[in-house]
Amino acid sequence: MKYEFSITKNPNPKKKPDPDTLRFGTEFTDHMFIMDYQEGEGWHDGRIVPYGPLSLDPAAVVFHYAQEMFEGLKAYKSEDGRVLLFRPYMNAQRTNRTNDRLCIPQIDEDLFVEAIKALVKIDADWIPQKEGTALYIRPFIIADEAFLGVRRSNHYKFIIILSPVGPYYVGGLTPTKLYVEDKYVRATDGGTGEAKCGGNYAASLKAQEEAHAKGYEQILWLDGVHRKYVEEVGTSNAFFVIGDEVVTAPLDGTILPGITRNSVIAILKKKGIKVAERKTTIDEIVQAYKDGKFKEMFASGTAAVISPVGELRYKDEDMIINNGEIGPIAQELYDTIYGIQTGKLPDDMGWTVEVK
Amino acid sequence: MKYEFSITKNPNPKKKPDPDTLRFGTEFTDHMFIMDYQEGEGWHDGRIVPYGPLSLDPAAVVFHYAQEMFEGLKAYKSEDGRVLLFRPYMNAQRTNRTNDRLCIPQIDEDLFVEAIKALVKIDADWIPQKEGTALYIRPFIIADEAFLGVRRSNHYKFIIILSPVGPYYVGGLTPTKLYVEDKYVRATDGGTGEAKCGGNYAASLKAQEEAHAKGYEQILWLDGVHRKYVEEVGTSNAFFVIGDEVVTAPLDGTILPGITRNSVIAILKKKGIKVAERKTTIDEIVQAYKDGKFKEMFASGTAAVISPVGELRYKDEDMIINNGEIGPIAQELYDTIYGIQTGKLPDDMGWTVEVK
Ligand SMILES: Cc1ncc(COP(=O)(O)O)c(C=O)c1O
Ligand SMILES: Cc1ncc(COP(=O)(O)O)c(C=O)c1O
Repeated sequence: MKYEFSITKNPNPKKKPDPDTLRFGTEFTDHMFIMDYQEGEGWHDGRIVPYGPLSLDPAAVVFHYAQEMFEGLKAYKSEDGRVLLFRPYMNAQRTNRTNDRLCIPQIDEDLFVEAIKALVKIDADWIPQKEGTALYIRPFIIADEAFLGVRRSNHYKFIIILSPVGPYYVGGLTPTKLYVEDKYVRATDGGTGEAKCGGNYAASLKAQEEAHAKGYEQILWLDGVHRKYVEEVGTSNAFFVIGDEVVTAPLDGTILPGITRNSVIAILKKKGIKVAERKTTIDEIVQAYKDGKFKEMFASGTAAVISPVGELRYKDEDMIINNGEIGPIAQELYDTIYGIQTGKLPDDMGWTVEVK
Repeated sequence: MKYEFSITKNPNPKKKPDPDTLRFGTEFTDHMFIMDYQEGEGWHDGRIVPYGPLSLDPAAVVFHYAQEMFEGLKAYKSEDGRVLLFRPYMNAQRTNRTNDRLCIPQIDEDLFVEAIKALVKIDADWIPQKEGTALYIRPFIIADEAFLGVRRSNHYKFIIILSPVGPYYVGGLTPTKLYVEDKYVRATDGGTGEAKCGGNYAASLKAQEEAHAKGYEQILWLDGVHRKYVEEVGTSNAFFVIGDEVVTAPLDGTILPGITRNSVIAILKKKGIKVAERKTTIDEIVQAYKDGKFKEMFASGTAAVISPVGELRYKDEDMIINNGEIGPIAQELYDTIYGIQTGKLPDDMGWTVEVK
């Protein structure tokens, strides 16, 4: 292996959780990966150590100015015992695009993937195998130089933690109810919408809570300038089946370039289903609904893979999609992507990377 | 006193820095204030402890989703030895408005101010007295529940740290050069512009670095929707003297409601100088410049108090303001506000709060 990481084994391994009651992101494995960056020296001292608290100066940049980013991907164990990652180089590339926007130093993409592999290998026993479960991998970077004042940090930590997870939505593939947000804005042109940085998520909490209070699970965001183009859903990208075409927002700076989104588009194209990345107004969707042409809606993301949408609320318009049931395209995409991810289907796209 | 905080004295006090070479935000005093919040229990266990590292789970919300906020104010020591805070209740109120936007629990405003007073009292020897220096006070809140998933944290820490500071701009009251940003956006309607949350600052780093590379010290932001209304400057609010009127952006959600801004407006009104909070386009300013009516520009903020602007660059238009020199209104505002803050002038506005 090109990269050498020092390894300190955890002398007190924890009891593994019951796969039947796994939730999302509340349990962590025995180890974590840490690497430091110092201006002038670069990234150095990559190491695997027991999972445990970080000790940071209270003036660390991350606490005040949120110079931080994260990624998310999953490891699955196939029925024949192989450990599979799904398109991890795309997470590495997205990391560097986020880093560029946040003035965080670039990371070697091979190193990023090798660090994930090394850590997953050590904690491979933590990968649950029950349907819908996985080992969620969370690489993240925090700026930890201690000073007050708005400028880029000269010191960072790149950390990877692992969490055995159950399904993101407790109901599984049950269709969700979404609220079209017309008061709050997640991202706008010239902002950080396409970066996976903490600030975007903090900004979204309030709208999410107000939607929950109204009885909706998630938000469908509209663009910040015109408040009419549909963008994305919570932590996933949005797809609409209108007539015989699947449409999704284009990557023009305000939405996260989802890896699941990219995979959905590739699979649709391969299957010969019409798919378009184009700006779509919420009014077009309401009109399609009235005309009986709004057939399906679903969201795509690492956490839930494909999440069907059963109801979409925009102002006074309550749209029940496909009778509130999962549609055929969403089901087929879920089966295909989840099948490839877990090694049940042949990986004819070359998307999985085995941890050996 | 209504609030009781436990106090653990630092057994190893540090050497105080040389007031002549003080910079901004790089040195910290011997103590800090910490208070915890637990859902169901509320804020509890306010305590003053030796300044030192925080120990946090790597899955703490603040590292991933930037649920965090901060405030900033200063303590001065007057010539007759009194320790003065400047309008600290306004910081407490702004904290709660920020908290509301970020889904962080509210803090009792008296408690907020009493905690600052108790900490400043213990480290009062750290307040430098040289012209332009002060003790900078940084209250901040971080979400530290350990889980992955986008929802509000159930656990927080409210922390106050203190830093003896020199002038924010090393040159002191020397006029700065600003670049009018037309590519990046700091905040937009429906976003978090009026909240003092980390994400806003992380998002601004890139634009700031590009402006530095072009030879400008700071950015003048334009609004995110039309890209034409002037908003604010770096970490301060912007004022323009056009003809005989002083104009500044209104508080309509996208700019931070600066406490210095509020004080500037009050003083101008008191002195009978015309001041307007109104949306102003950059084109109006360029036109005023061409007509010889753009007399002065300055920025207002806790760090620099009043910072005159000598040059403003918008696309190809290079505006040299007041011959690149500090103007009479900026000078008078600086003298008045700084005079009140440091107890040199009588506080006829009732703005200072003494730490006894
Ligand atoms: C805002 C947002 N949009 C979309 C996605 C989907 O991206 P991916 O498919 O890479 O998980 C995510 C992350 O998971 C996200 O946080
Ligand atoms: C974005 C921004 N605008 C304006 C200000 C000025 O506010 P104040 O006068 O309360 O310091 C600050 C903070 O200091 C700020 O961060």
